[in-house]
Amino acid sequence: MPIISDLELSRRRQGIIDAARACFARYGFEGATVARLEEATGKTRGAIFHHFNDKEALFLAIVSEDAKRQAEVVSQRGLVEVMRDMLHNPDEHDWMVTRAEIVRKLRTDPEFELRWREHQEVLDDAVLARLRANTQMRDDVPVEVVQTYLETVLEGFITKLAAGETPERLEAMLDVVEQSVRG
Amino acid sequence: MPIISDLELSRRRQGIIDAARACFARYGFEGATVARLEEATGKTRGAIFHHFNDKEALFLAIVSEDAKRQAEVVSQRGLVEVMRDMLHNPDEHDWMVTRAEIVRKLRTDPEFELRWREHQEVLDDAVLARLRANTQMRDDVPVEVVQTYLETVLEGFITKLAAGETPERLEAMLDVVEQSVRG
Repeated sequence: MPIISDLELSRRRQGIIDAARACFARYGFEGATVARLEEATGKTRGAIFHHFNDKEALFLAIVSEDAKRQAEVVSQRGLVEVMRDMLHNPDEHDWMVTRAEIVRKLRTDPEFELRWREHQEVLDDAVLARLRANTQMRDDVPVEVVQTYLETVLEGFITKLAAGETPERLEAMLDVVEQSVRG
Repeated sequence: MPIISDLELSRRRQGIIDAARACFARYGFEGATVARLEEATGKTRGAIFHHFNDKEALFLAIVSEDAKRQAEVVSQRGLVEVMRDMLHNPDEHDWMVTRAEIVRKLRTDPEFELRWREHQEVLDDAVLARLRANTQMRDDVPVEVVQTYLETVLEGFITKLAAGETPERLEAMLDVVEQSVRG
């Protein structure tokens, strides 16, 4: 076997993550069988599980990457802007599709919840930091409540988007949300 | 075969619906195999599919019943009160567990979306009627936008509840929501 550079290993790992994300989005966690993951990634199961211990580890690697990407955008522009961007550039937000799948697993697998929560902290922290730094925010309720409020709207927004709600209606809904968190 | 009264047929159908709801909630739509549905209902597949054409028809019967129950509570007390009640009496709200499953199917099965939407109209209509009748509601945005807003919060609320958010935080979040829709 030839020696493979770290860069090449990391490139292959990323390729698997990107192809697997689309596969999980299409078939769900259970439905994304190893055979389908092989087809989506163009790699054998041996090659896939060389990089990830098992299917859940691969799924959590995607969750982790997605949480980091969301956290970056939140830090720069806030959670409401993340949602507006999802309306205007839906193709750039394939990460959101993993969330509906997570909800189902959270409900049925308490141990998964613990492992997932770890990967989610980076996003929670980014939302809280952004809210604390934002001087336009209302201050009559604790910042943690505003955080829960915005995260609740985000989860519902993703659901509504998946269920085919019109962008116009969602955009107007986001105006109401933005207004309600302003001081 | 003895003659079975309509009442008895309807009682059996309801028994299957109630047991199957718990089964779908626990295993998800795909995971609730016919074998598991047999075990949950205590009936053979022949008996189950005497009442429902297939698994999806059974699932949609549950969706339909749940939408009607939600619509009734919404008519009497509004959507925010429905959410408060979910916090205080979680055991009475097993209907909510089917929703996360629906989201996943909506995303992956466009034909299911059409069939589902039909069953959902009763709830959408109840929310809209309640909002139109409520004189305390803000009137600076169209009532349809307020409806989308509240339904978005409901979807997110269900997600947050499933993901283990504390009732105290959710209760405080609902106060923010209530405030934001008042005139």
